[in-house]
Amino acid sequence: MKARQVAVVGSGPGRVAEAEEVGRLLAERGCTVVTGGLGEVMAAAARGAKEAGGTTIGILPGTSRADANEWVDHAVATGLGHMRNFAVAASGDAVIAVGGAWGTLSEIAFAKVLGRPVVILEPGLEVEGVDRAATPEEAVELALSRARADA
Amino acid sequence: MKARQVAVVGSGPGRVAEAEEVGRLLAERGCTVVTGGLGEVMAAAARGAKEAGGTTIGILPGTSRADANEWVDHAVATGLGHMRNFAVAASGDAVIAVGGAWGTLSEIAFAKVLGRPVVILEPGLEVEGVDRAATPEEAVELALSRARADA
Amino acid sequence: MKARQVAVVGSGPGRVAEAEEVGRLLAERGCTVVTGGLGEVMAAAARGAKEAGGTTIGILPGTSRADANEWVDHAVATGLGHMRNFAVAASGDAVIAVGGAWGTLSEIAFAKVLGRPVVILEPGLEVEGVDRAATPEEAVELALSRARADA
Amino acid sequence: MKARQVAVVGSGPGRVAEAEEVGRLLAERGCTVVTGGLGEVMAAAARGAKEAGGTTIGILPGTSRADANEWVDHAVATGLGHMRNFAVAASGDAVIAVGGAWGTLSEIAFAKVLGRPVVILEPGLEVEGVDRAATPEEAVELALSRARADA
Repeated sequence: MKARQVAVVGSGPGRVAEAEEVGRLLAERGCTVVTGGLGEVMAAAARGAKEAGGTTIGILPGTSRADANEWVDHAVATGLGHMRNFAVAASGDAVIAVGGAWGTLSEIAFAKVLGRPVVILEPGLEVEGVDRAATPEEAVELALSRARADA
Repeated sequence: MKARQVAVVGSGPGRVAEAEEVGRLLAERGCTVVTGGLGEVMAAAARGAKEAGGTTIGILPGTSRADANEWVDHAVATGLGHMRNFAVAASGDAVIAVGGAWGTLSEIAFAKVLGRPVVILEPGLEVEGVDRAATPEEAVELALSRARADA
Repeated sequence: MKARQVAVVGSGPGRVAEAEEVGRLLAERGCTVVTGGLGEVMAAAARGAKEAGGTTIGILPGTSRADANEWVDHAVATGLGHMRNFAVAASGDAVIAVGGAWGTLSEIAFAKVLGRPVVILEPGLEVEGVDRAATPEEAVELALSRARADA
Repeated sequence: MKARQVAVVGSGPGRVAEAEEVGRLLAERGCTVVTGGLGEVMAAAARGAKEAGGTTIGILPGTSRADANEWVDHAVATGLGHMRNFAVAASGDAVIAVGGAWGTLSEIAFAKVLGRPVVILEPGLEVEGVDRAATPEEAVELALSRARADA
């Protein structure tokens, strides 16, 4: 059976510690961590996963694998720019949002279009109809409990 | 000078009359109406524009021009699926949202990522930091007043 | 009935005169000319179409309509980079290639994936299984005769 | 240091044995094998890599990870349809083509647009300016010798 893949999305230098914790917890539960492959929340989530011995995928906006942060094991260069947000959302069996702005909102929207479970870590974007969690632990538990078995 | 292009996004069978009015008003002001090229709000906005003698562009999710509704003058087949929402938002000097669900939220998010002015027609999606208008007239005036001159 | 759309693809400063002639001939036959919206062959084909009173669509790689050359009537900003070549090919009922290099080859390949008729103007890329024409007139006649009625 | 990623592209039921051998040889040399994640040549290359204890990435055209063949370790769901060919080409430090038709030609074209080394295994598509190899061994050696150190 393949490892579950969970996407961690978001941004904001102030959310790095939480993102790292989310990545670590996901890896401890055997999940592969999928991110957009760049900095801040993306790098922190990947770093946390690697610290826990996990595996990471980075789905990059540009055309060069060299853009990936150092904690990305497997880099996919999409050339899609902002639209790579769709592939990040689509490649997670669930999506956890940490901080973030408009780009993160697009990822949440696409995840919902695709029926993927989404959890917003508090404090986070205000989006009606999306689950929220108070801590990284709660976010990970909620995301995994809702992840589609068939995704 | 080229005509301004304004994107009309959204969905919902109950919002067709308003979308048609938005399309008509945009055409009367000399704007080309850009939509996703399919049904409901998209078709209504294009129909309204054509009734007023305007020009319409449909940016389709699929690979066939034949998918466009009959009020689309110029159909672009992107093959992008849901990601064509990005091209719709990017191709408008401003974006007006009428109704809608998660797909519309992705278009609003992308428009904001790109710095495009966005106006949500009431009642509409709750998105912090996005202008709102009570009527089609107000939505069109607000969108045009904020459209970037250089777009 | 909607105007036929024919995509003109290619590159090369030495092919500008031929591309302009292709654009002109397509417009004279009532076709809308679709290009990638930038320079050289793309600009020349659009300019030729406008000289003949035609209509032009530019499908841009970037996110700003301002990137379009001055002969583009309707600009679609895709943000797709090189992948916008797919949308160019998909948006033509037929595709005519004038000069070009690897990007043009991707457009020819995608047009064939989609079953669109493709004509390469001599001298041009060597691609097995693609029709060739000796002159702009012949290229336009061949492309139109093979354009799918249902596209 | 990260593992090199090499994309194996192509199609054709008659080329499965060679594709499996290419995948096996790449894994033996420590490369991660990137494919489009579906059947025939894609599945065979991934299967070969797994038989040799390697790691595989599948870059899927659709929106569901469940579409991946069983030898894909890490599946990226792009929703890009045919355009996912770009991401496959972009995600390889080199590209090896086994068999194939128009879709494969688009991958070769995009790889060349991006400056990635490409090797066509004989018998294969006729594309001017692309290296050719007579055997899977030769294809793998040639691809690796030309892979950009910085990709």
